[in-house]
Amino acid sequence: MVRVKELVKKLDPYVPGRSNADLARAYNLDPDKIIRMGSNENPLGPSPWAVKALQENLHKINTYPESNTDDLKRKIASYAGVNVEEVIIGGDGADEILDVLAKTLIEPGDEYIVHPPSYMYYEFTFNIHGAVPVYARWDIEKNQLDLDSVLEAISPRTKVIFLCTPNNPTGGLIDKKDIRTVLESTDALVVVDEAYWEFSGVNNLELLAEYDNLFILRTFSKVMGLAGMRIGYGIGNKEFIQYMHRVKPVFSLNKLSHIAASTTLDDPDYIERSNELSIQSRDYLYHEMSKIPQLKVYQSLANYMLVDIRDTGMNSREISEELMKNGVIVRDCSSFRGLDEYWIRVSVATMEEDEQFINILQNILQ
Amino acid sequence: MVRVKELVKKLDPYVPGRSNADLARAYNLDPDKIIRMGSNENPLGPSPWAVKALQENLHKINTYPESNTDDLKRKIASYAGVNVEEVIIGGDGADEILDVLAKTLIEPGDEYIVHPPSYMYYEFTFNIHGAVPVYARWDIEKNQLDLDSVLEAISPRTKVIFLCTPNNPTGGLIDKKDIRTVLESTDALVVVDEAYWEFSGVNNLELLAEYDNLFILRTFSKVMGLAGMRIGYGIGNKEFIQYMHRVKPVFSLNKLSHIAASTTLDDPDYIERSNELSIQSRDYLYHEMSKIPQLKVYQSLANYMLVDIRDTGMNSREISEELMKNGVIVRDCSSFRGLDEYWIRVSVATMEEDEQFINILQNILQ
Repeated sequence: MVRVKELVKKLDPYVPGRSNADLARAYNLDPDKIIRMGSNENPLGPSPWAVKALQENLHKINTYPESNTDDLKRKIASYAGVNVEEVIIGGDGADEILDVLAKTLIEPGDEYIVHPPSYMYYEFTFNIHGAVPVYARWDIEKNQLDLDSVLEAISPRTKVIFLCTPNNPTGGLIDKKDIRTVLESTDALVVVDEAYWEFSGVNNLELLAEYDNLFILRTFSKVMGLAGMRIGYGIGNKEFIQYMHRVKPVFSLNKLSHIAASTTLDDPDYIERSNELSIQSRDYLYHEMSKIPQLKVYQSLANYMLVDIRDTGMNSREISEELMKNGVIVRDCSSFRGLDEYWIRVSVATMEEDEQFINILQNILQ
Repeated sequence: MVRVKELVKKLDPYVPGRSNADLARAYNLDPDKIIRMGSNENPLGPSPWAVKALQENLHKINTYPESNTDDLKRKIASYAGVNVEEVIIGGDGADEILDVLAKTLIEPGDEYIVHPPSYMYYEFTFNIHGAVPVYARWDIEKNQLDLDSVLEAISPRTKVIFLCTPNNPTGGLIDKKDIRTVLESTDALVVVDEAYWEFSGVNNLELLAEYDNLFILRTFSKVMGLAGMRIGYGIGNKEFIQYMHRVKPVFSLNKLSHIAASTTLDDPDYIERSNELSIQSRDYLYHEMSKIPQLKVYQSLANYMLVDIRDTGMNSREISEELMKNGVIVRDCSSFRGLDEYWIRVSVATMEEDEQFINILQNILQ
């Protein structure tokens, strides 16, 4: 046997999730009728412009993507109101940007700070590079960052601090003054994950001019409706972005992803409608679930909300299974660090699906 | 400024290539009429089945890809005649598999062996992880591996040995007995890159049963006609593959890439026609270019061939530019380690394009 790294032997073994087709078979469901409220996707579907442009380019998929993505960078820069040199594009969504950040910054033993419960992929990616997680804390009751816990976690070995706003899975925002405080307390890179910012209307771009250790992480998987195409981007100090490009895979943005991202940005009406539908669905779901006495629903500024289900008499695996039997997928949150087995996360869907979901939930909890 | 790794500061700065659109503008060409003989692509276009399946699934690209790709692994295993547990799929083509190999095996200072001239991306990927290249040699005149140079390069720190067959860009095969000799001389992982094996008809799968340090690297970018979709796969010892899965990105195979790969494997007629067209084109180009006295053409078992152009009075940049003015892209090989500025690589195209190319070349060299 070849000599696998000791670090890799200590990582958790990979256990693949069940595929949608498997789930549909197991519960005897039509895979095309499953109500997807587990992955924070866009219920509107993709931009029609994007679909049309893809149709017109399918015959070219035998040719390589462009290694030069300057045209898309320019559109992203224009959408965000930043300079093109401040943009980097990821071909495996924001997840690739995380990997490129680790490659640019992490030497084995370096520390990074996360605030559980939050997006778990930070840890997955950074631990592979030998980085050591240091845990700050998200105050779930107040649904806000415990700022002191972040400041206390900073050490001379801290290389990266992750701040997720709106936070996944809790949905709360981080105060801009808290982000400033963190930026001023360290020379580590502060990664502000704004995957869901459009649903909150609040972003932190204005801080870029003041802090060269700020990096903003974003995605085309949410309001842009392109989760299946795996496109992310980062915005940061242009000198730092240049270093990132030295280690970024050259062809990872596939040809159709490039086209889909570009044409979606050409369709601001779609982006606006996406946003409106998601907010409408979020407000409806919050309102209706709040009426159910066994549920404690957390107010969210994203396209999902966290629900404490401990008063239902079921745990998250059990309630997820009951919902699945009725054709609804929600996110069982027991795998999130910092949450126990009594939490689910519910994503927005179409208004029709929302109503079906509320009916199903009421029936289950009767 | 944040503390970027010293290693990254020493890597070459990233210089993006010119985009196709830029090239077309610069040379006043119709971008859809450029003859692409620079990237070893499939001139037949993608499988019609793949195009049809993509069309039917474009409306779903707002949803995440499956993290479970077992269905595609089973089809690949069946195509290759191996077990499903011996297969890993890469979402950025074979390039992602290279990155995952480095993550599984490389600690800073570990060595890997390459045989220039060969595929340059091995070095790009492995150097990012702090691995140290050790150079063996490809004997260009004989178009074969200098086996002794590989054996001499092996040290206790060798973690990976790359053997590319057919070799890119020279087109020659590596003898199976030489591969055996390398496998028996080391406990390092021997990565046999078979990206182009279908065009040669020769592969090394039969050695898997005997050597647990063999890993075979493959791609959907060549005979499968899906370069734009970025899909690769690896075949190796199943215990080793499990370790690789611990560090592999979870969602990197995008939704449409998954569908395109799966439906192309369902279309063996397409794969056969692809192969036949490429071989016909290769034989024609070899025959016709060999008649031109200023060119020395190397016989190839892949879908490209190496050409020594030093007797034309031009270097590779100059002849590439002359061809580009006439609407043809070939590969200027001066960036390949081990080749000087007098080599180009010519990929197969359609028979009609081949004839146009030969005419253009004759005119330029008159």
